[in-house]
Amino acid sequence: MKKMKAAVFVSPGKIALHEKAVPVPGPGEALVRVTTTTICGTDVHILKGEYPVKPGLTIGHELVGVVDSCGPGMTGYQPGQRVIVGAITPCGQCHPCLDGHQAQCGGYAMGGWKFGNTIDGCQAEYVLVPNAMANLALVPDSLTDEQVLMCPDIMSTGFGGAENGHIMIGDSVAIFAQGPIGLCATAGAKLRGASQIIAVDSIDKRLEVSKQLGATVTINFKKEDPINVIKDLTRGRGVDVAVEALGTQETFESCLRAIKPGGTLSSLGVYSGKLTMPLDAFAAGLGDHKIVTTLCPGGKERMRRLMNVVESGAVDLRSFVTHHFTLDEIENAYELFANQCDGVIKVAIKVS
Amino acid sequence: MKKMKAAVFVSPGKIALHEKAVPVPGPGEALVRVTTTTICGTDVHILKGEYPVKPGLTIGHELVGVVDSCGPGMTGYQPGQRVIVGAITPCGQCHPCLDGHQAQCGGYAMGGWKFGNTIDGCQAEYVLVPNAMANLALVPDSLTDEQVLMCPDIMSTGFGGAENGHIMIGDSVAIFAQGPIGLCATAGAKLRGASQIIAVDSIDKRLEVSKQLGATVTINFKKEDPINVIKDLTRGRGVDVAVEALGTQETFESCLRAIKPGGTLSSLGVYSGKLTMPLDAFAAGLGDHKIVTTLCPGGKERMRRLMNVVESGAVDLRSFVTHHFTLDEIENAYELFANQCDGVIKVAIKVS
Amino acid sequence: MKKMKAAVFVSPGKIALHEKAVPVPGPGEALVRVTTTTICGTDVHILKGEYPVKPGLTIGHELVGVVDSCGPGMTGYQPGQRVIVGAITPCGQCHPCLDGHQAQCGGYAMGGWKFGNTIDGCQAEYVLVPNAMANLALVPDSLTDEQVLMCPDIMSTGFGGAENGHIMIGDSVAIFAQGPIGLCATAGAKLRGASQIIAVDSIDKRLEVSKQLGATVTINFKKEDPINVIKDLTRGRGVDVAVEALGTQETFESCLRAIKPGGTLSSLGVYSGKLTMPLDAFAAGLGDHKIVTTLCPGGKERMRRLMNVVESGAVDLRSFVTHHFTLDEIENAYELFANQCDGVIKVAIKVS
Amino acid sequence: MKKMKAAVFVSPGKIALHEKAVPVPGPGEALVRVTTTTICGTDVHILKGEYPVKPGLTIGHELVGVVDSCGPGMTGYQPGQRVIVGAITPCGQCHPCLDGHQAQCGGYAMGGWKFGNTIDGCQAEYVLVPNAMANLALVPDSLTDEQVLMCPDIMSTGFGGAENGHIMIGDSVAIFAQGPIGLCATAGAKLRGASQIIAVDSIDKRLEVSKQLGATVTINFKKEDPINVIKDLTRGRGVDVAVEALGTQETFESCLRAIKPGGTLSSLGVYSGKLTMPLDAFAAGLGDHKIVTTLCPGGKERMRRLMNVVESGAVDLRSFVTHHFTLDEIENAYELFANQCDGVIKVAIKVS
Repeated sequence: MKKMKAAVFVSPGKIALHEKAVPVPGPGEALVRVTTTTICGTDVHILKGEYPVKPGLTIGHELVGVVDSCGPGMTGYQPGQRVIVGAITPCGQCHPCLDGHQAQCGGYAMGGWKFGNTIDGCQAEYVLVPNAMANLALVPDSLTDEQVLMCPDIMSTGFGGAENGHIMIGDSVAIFAQGPIGLCATAGAKLRGASQIIAVDSIDKRLEVSKQLGATVTINFKKEDPINVIKDLTRGRGVDVAVEALGTQETFESCLRAIKPGGTLSSLGVYSGKLTMPLDAFAAGLGDHKIVTTLCPGGKERMRRLMNVVESGAVDLRSFVTHHFTLDEIENAYELFANQCDGVIKVAIKVS
Repeated sequence: MKKMKAAVFVSPGKIALHEKAVPVPGPGEALVRVTTTTICGTDVHILKGEYPVKPGLTIGHELVGVVDSCGPGMTGYQPGQRVIVGAITPCGQCHPCLDGHQAQCGGYAMGGWKFGNTIDGCQAEYVLVPNAMANLALVPDSLTDEQVLMCPDIMSTGFGGAENGHIMIGDSVAIFAQGPIGLCATAGAKLRGASQIIAVDSIDKRLEVSKQLGATVTINFKKEDPINVIKDLTRGRGVDVAVEALGTQETFESCLRAIKPGGTLSSLGVYSGKLTMPLDAFAAGLGDHKIVTTLCPGGKERMRRLMNVVESGAVDLRSFVTHHFTLDEIENAYELFANQCDGVIKVAIKVS
Repeated sequence: MKKMKAAVFVSPGKIALHEKAVPVPGPGEALVRVTTTTICGTDVHILKGEYPVKPGLTIGHELVGVVDSCGPGMTGYQPGQRVIVGAITPCGQCHPCLDGHQAQCGGYAMGGWKFGNTIDGCQAEYVLVPNAMANLALVPDSLTDEQVLMCPDIMSTGFGGAENGHIMIGDSVAIFAQGPIGLCATAGAKLRGASQIIAVDSIDKRLEVSKQLGATVTINFKKEDPINVIKDLTRGRGVDVAVEALGTQETFESCLRAIKPGGTLSSLGVYSGKLTMPLDAFAAGLGDHKIVTTLCPGGKERMRRLMNVVESGAVDLRSFVTHHFTLDEIENAYELFANQCDGVIKVAIKVS
Repeated sequence: MKKMKAAVFVSPGKIALHEKAVPVPGPGEALVRVTTTTICGTDVHILKGEYPVKPGLTIGHELVGVVDSCGPGMTGYQPGQRVIVGAITPCGQCHPCLDGHQAQCGGYAMGGWKFGNTIDGCQAEYVLVPNAMANLALVPDSLTDEQVLMCPDIMSTGFGGAENGHIMIGDSVAIFAQGPIGLCATAGAKLRGASQIIAVDSIDKRLEVSKQLGATVTINFKKEDPINVIKDLTRGRGVDVAVEALGTQETFESCLRAIKPGGTLSSLGVYSGKLTMPLDAFAAGLGDHKIVTTLCPGGKERMRRLMNVVESGAVDLRSFVTHHFTLDEIENAYELFANQCDGVIKVAIKVS
């Protein structure tokens, strides 16, 4: 039995590199040899025990790799093909998937998020891809691993925030928090034709990246009150769409205060603790407001579209990779990323 | 100067019939002689001082009447035409109106709600209709006052809840609270093609009306736990859309618990106090949920469509009028309606 | 090797009952024992050689049956379960399916239509269902075969015409041609909340059925000019949505003449010969018109929703089955149906 | 009575500068002093007698100007304000306007197009703006006349083609014809997030402009077969959306051949003569195709949004103005523009 190294959740506070058997693909599955992976904020929640997964589970849901072998019933793929797989791996065949709710695959909340959550993830030498025909997305030769490394999760999520906010040409959009996902939402707002793109964060360095990605205005909320600035910038109207990209009461509330009557709050954050609706900003429920939430869209068609964007040059996230590690060094990578040291945005973990 | 009787807000707890001058229509305005009006739950909030309006303001925003005279610049209308006017009177010409947010006319929250809020309302012998060309909707001869009396507010609002929930053919829909608006949402769910329509209330008599309007299942939440029943009825999935028609933490939360991952909470209620998001039901923000709020759609085109529905016989709300009063008796009507006595659903106030 | 009877296309003009081997399900496939099937207008086109299929192919794409056996990799189904399968059998896993274009599965036009077109169909004792997990829809015990027999094709197609026309509450809708699909579009228009539903055909008997399904007005185009009547009924406006349900120049053109500026022509027909756009009715391309075409939506989720509608009692198409045959008599059934004898709407072929 | 110069349609082949009385604004109207205007392809059709207007009518529907005076009932505007007005001037108050079909104002085809069609246009020193509150859009001080001169028509129309095509992030889009409107559709496709933008024309100079505006590929159809190239570029799929920007059988047909099953043909052209649907490309009506047509969206909110785009720098069309004239020279301007001499894209007519 072939062995491989995999970063597994051991117990709260501990993710460690273990040896595991290389899995064998069953019907409809594919085995992918991981070439590059990365760490997500969600992985840090798992590390800290804030999001429960089974001890022994391999972590990670963002991967670039090469098809190693295909299980029975798979057609149209060959070993050696370079692929990415979305963080969310819909089956394409259950009721919610067929109804357009692929991220809620199976019909339970977040059901489409399997890697590093309900099945072994990709911070490993190999990963078993479920429903592989729906999920293996071929990477064009012209693109490097690092160019497509952000597609599986943060680009898909961030763009999804812009898309589900139903941004229109000429809109004013505010994005609260400019971590990797917020930055992608900023880029997404530009891609959808927003004209006034207001990025809010407390780290000036992040806000510089926001500008490169399309922000027309940046607000450091430690220096200015974002709601006041937004009201000024929009002559009192408020923005058409606000994107929440952190998952806190404060940012959620700010979004609601920032939007116009009839505006949309597009929420990407993962909330914990308590979330209260500020009824004044919510116009007691009479403001024709919309609140939409988006879990990272997955599936190979989504990945194809995102790689189209990368290939077109419209959005280039290579600068997000601020630090490089090998799989053997992944515990260090967690250390750095979990503590947000050294201006890290994202890390690249070179596996093979 | 011609005089008229008008029900005005005097002070918290007191709405009384006063004498006022009959107004004269300015440019773009029309004077309408009111024939029939009614009382809304919002009027009761005003009566109780829970929703602040200026003392001396004429109350009321639901009317059937006859065009008395037209101000300068108005074309296409003649005195004597029978009309209804929506509770919300958009100007049609401001930025939000032109952008499809007519209920937020003017760009401030609820800006389209003018009658009995920011200008004199229609619980009076005459009412001045602003932006009359956008708001006077001709009533077909075949329909009586009482047949169209619900169009201006509760039918528009209730149907709006169904429409903005984006109900699809074959959907399961739950409507929490079966007051006049919730009942209309129930009828609206049927009109949009929902197959399983679950009406929730605590008053069995209301739930009988729900059945007549299209509910396929009714739940008296005093006798059964609606969430359990809904999960059973949907084999654990939850409903596609839940409509909130009361404005309380409990109903809002139940809606969120009732919907499937990817489902929509369509909110019609007016919330006061505090509104907290149950994070478990909200899937911490990752359930692809949508929360949409709807303020009564107005304007003459909306009214035309609603009268089409009435004319087609698809929805008949005549039985909603459980009690009749004259304008002189309006204080009694408030007494009855505010205290929800005698099984009242809606009252009809005959004015002239 | 087990044998079965199957109606196969022999040559133009000839569909005959042949003996074939009962197929064995491969990965992801299921074998279904057919209990009831029917004949579609498309099958008649095949019979007449107007739509080319390979000689020897089993015809038919509408079925009710019982799961006989499941291929490798299938989970969640057991032999003995009663199912229907849509006429269109999307894989759920290719790019177009994941992008919401399930009827165009595989990326070529009509790619989702496989049964009796590119693979053996269901006018047979057994049928092999491709991508069975996406396509086997469990039939509730409360529904008979004949109650759900219309779901796989005509109900899905007809409702689809109403859905894709984006009918709104209070709309005026005209449906041109009241064959089985047009009748279902009429029922669909009612389900979506249209108030004025105008059914057009030349057979009064059909128009009586239209009325039962929701038509508020019927026009026998041999007796009246439908465009004139429609303009009168809508006070010159035209209808909001017109559904084309035949596939001829005349009906297409009438739809375009019937709709208002800004209206939608929802096309369901299969056109042959030549189709010309009447530029006057098309406002030279400046009328903000939409023309949308719909191929029967398939997949088990669609089927589930349609069975919900049947179960709710909102639409009852049992009266469509005007004639009954056994599989052995299928050639007679074709004879009757192809020649539209004896007031036939649809036939039911009892297989086992 | 004050006099002014105005370019009027005299007879087919002749548009000439006449003297006319400066009009006086009635209720809801405003008089605008024109500072800059331009000539549209439609004006050329009028000149040639191909589109009938009343002799003596002032031509022109694209203007930048200054508010001179306001009629009774107008509020919120003052003389001296710099404004643009869309080519389409919806009233905002009729049934179609309130229903979102502002370009079809009044309920007849193209009813929103009034300037230089049914009322005097703006190739004059002054123009009377109907429903001025819905149509006067304030120009930010930071923008010059020429920066916003394309907003009233070609930018609104071209972007509208992209918007109504429902372009998604990562889409492939082809735009057939790169005249001023086609070029704006190219820019619009980029604004909506298309990744592969294929511009088709026969003039290489135009195609260079296409590249500057966002085209990722250009095809000179005199040198290459666009359908073949598009199929190659999309690996046989076809584009998601094709925009028709000329109004000929050939471009319409090419669009239909270029789109994928499930794709959208977004039509902007004005067709004359005959338009035939190629049934093979149309998949006999079973390809889930959409054909949508768009008349230039108007109204002050639309103009505000377009000026937002200009202000953001995302789209800069100043280079479109290839030639400058004064109002006195307008006949020369028509001569040049009608004959497409000297590489003209658009002309600017300086009025005052």
